Amino acid sequence: MKAVVKRKRARGMEFIEVPTPKAGPRDVLIRVRIASICGTDVHIHDWTRWAQHRFTPPRIIGHEFVGDVEKIGEEVTQVKVGDRVSAESHLTCGSCYQCKNGYSEVCRNFKLLGVDHDGTFGEYLVLPEHVLWKNDEKIPDEWATIQEPFGNAVDTVLAEDISAKTVLILGAGPIGLFATGIARACGASLIVVSDPNNYRLAISKKMGAHITVNPRRQDIIQLVLGATHNNGVDVVLEFSGNNQALGQGLKAVTPGGRVSILGIYERRVSIDLNKEVIFKKIRIYGITGRKVFSTWHKTSQFLSSGLVDPGPIVTHQFPLKDYGKGMKLMKDGKCGKVVLYV
Amino acid sequence: MKAVVKRKRARGMEFIEVPTPKAGPRDVLIRVRIASICGTDVHIHDWTRWAQHRFTPPRIIGHEFVGDVEKIGEEVTQVKVGDRVSAESHLTCGSCYQCKNGYSEVCRNFKLLGVDHDGTFGEYLVLPEHVLWKNDEKIPDEWATIQEPFGNAVDTVLAEDISAKTVLILGAGPIGLFATGIARACGASLIVVSDPNNYRLAISKKMGAHITVNPRRQDIIQLVLGATHNNGVDVVLEFSGNNQALGQGLKAVTPGGRVSILGIYERRVSIDLNKEVIFKKIRIYGITGRKVFSTWHKTSQFLSSGLVDPGPIVTHQFPLKDYGKGMKLMKDGKCGKVVLYV
Amino acid sequence: MKAVVKRKRARGMEFIEVPTPKAGPRDVLIRVRIASICGTDVHIHDWTRWAQHRFTPPRIIGHEFVGDVEKIGEEVTQVKVGDRVSAESHLTCGSCYQCKNGYSEVCRNFKLLGVDHDGTFGEYLVLPEHVLWKNDEKIPDEWATIQEPFGNAVDTVLAEDISAKTVLILGAGPIGLFATGIARACGASLIVVSDPNNYRLAISKKMGAHITVNPRRQDIIQLVLGATHNNGVDVVLEFSGNNQALGQGLKAVTPGGRVSILGIYERRVSIDLNKEVIFKKIRIYGITGRKVFSTWHKTSQFLSSGLVDPGPIVTHQFPLKDYGKGMKLMKDGKCGKVVLYV
Amino acid sequence: MKAVVKRKRARGMEFIEVPTPKAGPRDVLIRVRIASICGTDVHIHDWTRWAQHRFTPPRIIGHEFVGDVEKIGEEVTQVKVGDRVSAESHLTCGSCYQCKNGYSEVCRNFKLLGVDHDGTFGEYLVLPEHVLWKNDEKIPDEWATIQEPFGNAVDTVLAEDISAKTVLILGAGPIGLFATGIARACGASLIVVSDPNNYRLAISKKMGAHITVNPRRQDIIQLVLGATHNNGVDVVLEFSGNNQALGQGLKAVTPGGRVSILGIYERRVSIDLNKEVIFKKIRIYGITGRKVFSTWHKTSQFLSSGLVDPGPIVTHQFPLKDYGKGMKLMKDGKCGKVVLYV
Repeated sequence: MKAVVKRKRARGMEFIEVPTPKAGPRDVLIRVRIASICGTDVHIHDWTRWAQHRFTPPRIIGHEFVGDVEKIGEEVTQVKVGDRVSAESHLTCGSCYQCKNGYSEVCRNFKLLGVDHDGTFGEYLVLPEHVLWKNDEKIPDEWATIQEPFGNAVDTVLAEDISAKTVLILGAGPIGLFATGIARACGASLIVVSDPNNYRLAISKKMGAHITVNPRRQDIIQLVLGATHNNGVDVVLEFSGNNQALGQGLKAVTPGGRVSILGIYERRVSIDLNKEVIFKKIRIYGITGRKVFSTWHKTSQFLSSGLVDPGPIVTHQFPLKDYGKGMKLMKDGKCGKVVLYV
Repeated sequence: MKAVVKRKRARGMEFIEVPTPKAGPRDVLIRVRIASICGTDVHIHDWTRWAQHRFTPPRIIGHEFVGDVEKIGEEVTQVKVGDRVSAESHLTCGSCYQCKNGYSEVCRNFKLLGVDHDGTFGEYLVLPEHVLWKNDEKIPDEWATIQEPFGNAVDTVLAEDISAKTVLILGAGPIGLFATGIARACGASLIVVSDPNNYRLAISKKMGAHITVNPRRQDIIQLVLGATHNNGVDVVLEFSGNNQALGQGLKAVTPGGRVSILGIYERRVSIDLNKEVIFKKIRIYGITGRKVFSTWHKTSQFLSSGLVDPGPIVTHQFPLKDYGKGMKLMKDGKCGKVVLYV
Repeated sequence: MKAVVKRKRARGMEFIEVPTPKAGPRDVLIRVRIASICGTDVHIHDWTRWAQHRFTPPRIIGHEFVGDVEKIGEEVTQVKVGDRVSAESHLTCGSCYQCKNGYSEVCRNFKLLGVDHDGTFGEYLVLPEHVLWKNDEKIPDEWATIQEPFGNAVDTVLAEDISAKTVLILGAGPIGLFATGIARACGASLIVVSDPNNYRLAISKKMGAHITVNPRRQDIIQLVLGATHNNGVDVVLEFSGNNQALGQGLKAVTPGGRVSILGIYERRVSIDLNKEVIFKKIRIYGITGRKVFSTWHKTSQFLSSGLVDPGPIVTHQFPLKDYGKGMKLMKDGKCGKVVLYV
Repeated sequence: MKAVVKRKRARGMEFIEVPTPKAGPRDVLIRVRIASICGTDVHIHDWTRWAQHRFTPPRIIGHEFVGDVEKIGEEVTQVKVGDRVSAESHLTCGSCYQCKNGYSEVCRNFKLLGVDHDGTFGEYLVLPEHVLWKNDEKIPDEWATIQEPFGNAVDTVLAEDISAKTVLILGAGPIGLFATGIARACGASLIVVSDPNNYRLAISKKMGAHITVNPRRQDIIQLVLGATHNNGVDVVLEFSGNNQALGQGLKAVTPGGRVSILGIYERRVSIDLNKEVIFKKIRIYGITGRKVFSTWHKTSQFLSSGLVDPGPIVTHQFPLKDYGKGMKLMKDGKCGKVVLYV
């Protein structure tokens, strides 16, 4: 079969012929319809410091997809041939402290699809049945493939109830844009989105942002205070991974509010804990992964009911072999989500 | 001044001249702009068993309103002359176990406006400052007056997060209709509204119901199962006060779901606790009153942001003297909310 | 092997020779050390109406135990030979709405150990690996076997935080007694235990009850009000399955409080919803099963740390063949928990 | 009357004769029985940078106390002459966004007793009635006076349920010691207390610490991992205000755990957000103030029921005039809590 493989400890990838993977007794062989590109894949391509530290070639990359069950192992009970599935990208161990206590999203031994286990950028894929999610028939393929990152947005927005709350969203990459749609669908009373990229701000408007702001041109804090009777926002959702943005978020949040952080930072961050966290009595939620599968269920509800239309975010489609074009667009900040037809 | 007064322990009321009330040092004199009719007022008018037990004439009735601060006592600090206000109808004691612990909505010594304290169906009204709510300028008078019952709906819907949940709403009187709009605004993925009154079902459609059902003509349980892949709904909101409807709700809720109950019942209810509550591990929330003032704040956010448009529910307007026409419509089920211009 | 088997649709059971069960690829063969008797087992023995409706002979009964892994199937990854294990008694399906959403304790297709699947009252037992719980080495066998019902108590007590709360516990059977110990360990400020059986009340004292009351001799409501400055209790935990006790609980709970119900009732219950639930704005939690495995983890913490000493509750030990003696004691109310050595 | 007054913008204080304060219509005059010293008072005495920035002489200092209502204003309804009271030290405005939404502990306009309003280190004190707390008769004066800082500990420990959880407490000053007693009373399954001061570690043992550690002599992380099967602790409570301790806490907490922070830091802190917060998906709670009055109610329950015995923490008693001796002991770390008899 054909697949996108990272073969060398250097920049770049290859679209080559590889053996079709084999499924064990508890595994499932899936024929991929669509895969989509995550920032992680770009890091692997560019062989950044993170990738050098974390990734061991050779490996088929990719962890977002939708596909069809082609074959099941003899011990498989939860899916059947022909089911249209996507999957949780964290292949969890099921036996660590975290898994046993119901928060397997921080499994201590998880393997990441497309990093520790051959990924979704190929014609076929093998996965253990316990990570598979059967897709609602109402969700089209182009949306089904983005449920994994959408789930990140779900958990960031809904770490606490968002209804009737004022919200500042920092960073309008795909996950920040999903979050904008989710916050709007769930009754946020004011959504301010901040990003230095005007292309993305324009999409955030379509997703339901009431106010957009380019932090290079406007003072976010003043804008937020002006829009909230000088109270600040109830909720800050940080997707940018930018130290300065985080600092703005901590200033913008009203005393007693909450901050959810999904963005990944290039270096340690410096915080005035007294003034910005303790005396304001805020709650900070680090967010990673997805609740398996309650987050997937919510995601499915949002997408199948029409509550959130991610259409404006899925900006580009390419055949799999043109994955490089998608990665280029992502680095240039000239796209939302890029999906690849296999 | 002119006011609607219940003077006798018998059916009826009178629109008569009464002395303008006087405000003490911590009180506020308010000139009423608009009042609105609640089912409680109709009970008092009709001198039902509840009213005979609970109400002592003479008393100006009514507890929903919007008006202007005309005069403040010398110890008043929270409002000033000219503020456009509404008020929490529960005049709480501030010193009981419940008040001291932050749930004054079940104050053990509260006095009810329009029942234990002269009410809103007159030109002027005196209230202690601690129950007053300053209205957001974006909320028109006709909506400001209905914030008190709207708050009941807020607490019923949001007893737990409603986003991405399937919901059955039993009873489409004004509060059930508010709840429909709130559930829709807060991201419920499916809203089924049940009521025997087709006039009200038509309004519920405008408020965001996905499916409406007349329980006299259709089997609610079958309909709910059909609409939820045989799972039942995640959430039941009971506003009808009808035993049979409650029974349907307990059957329709999925195991692990929740039921919020605001409706008032004519008699004791009989429940199959084992089958409908325990083995299904559901949570039941009795709902009354409003959180002071966090519920009012949410209400204000919903109404001022446009998240919920109660326009279709406010179906009739009369001058105060025609309060009787409004009460007649309510008994006939031929209205949503009726507001009275003072 | 020897086992206690229900063979006929009539009163009684038999201790007989049966074939040792065989384990499939995802199953585990366990040699039982100790089993313990639940009220369910007595119902099956006595062939009560519930049993006639629910149970199909022949079947080895029992669902509480501690034992050693003797052999594992080829696909088993979570336990190894020699592990000392107990197990969740609900053999869940893993694919229903409830299982997928993280509340498998109300799995729609679960099989009950000792009812739908051969149980623990024998020398050997076969179970799928996903229900097994590895026991903490600090927990002795006699306590390890009672973790399943102990978990029921954990979820009943901790449906909400119990610390600094006043509590009324209705019913001092084994689970009510576990709950007494848990409530005390978790910082309940007052624990009143009600039961008509003085033998059990004496055990509840040892478990940490501040006040015990025999409802046949004393007025519970008066006692509760007297002990709580006339406020009523913050929390009611209902284990008795007695309608009258439930009624007392609903009266005794303070407005804004919560009621957790685990007891099973002989018939439908009648409730004054307005007065006892709605106007008091209480929360009612139906409780069944255990969170898999977070409840087991808490149970393990309570028992291994010494926070709860269930010693006074485990009142009787018999060899397995004398199961009948234990059942007799249970019916007579002359025991706490009875454990059987295999 | 006699009082301890900060008169000059310089180091030191004076015990001098001052006019007895006067109470307005909504105020209460209290005769102080006992006051107690907080670190804040020492800062004011020593005229530290914080004090120079925040405090304006002249002012009677002190914010912890117990005393008797001597006289009430004509509009006062909640207390009467002779009541034995303490008080919330945050004199809140009642009208800001935070006050209106039920989290007045972060009131935007609060005045701090002993800093912005004459304090408790004198024979008499005037306070608005809305901050007063009537003391339970079972709580002795020496404990009643420390309810204010005890409440800080309550909110830090109980930001989430602590039962059956493993806990690391950083800093064993008075509030850390209260927290140790509260965590133990509420069912923490393991409590590790870290402090470089062995005198305080000895008290923490009396309060219920299972393990104490002097971070200058032992590796906390190794110790925590060793005590938790290499999982880390479920909960970290940070009272030290020490950057290094916070760093240890973030390393010691298990993925999915929570960290509550009350300690005040000398400078900004630097955090590896990715590794320590986001990928671990922890929750951080900034803690300040107390919920009015639900925290006071819990405090009262802990102290009046005997659940927490703060006896070992109240190490020194002096007459008010010897306040300086107490402050000296505090700076030397040779005391728990110091109370002053007026």
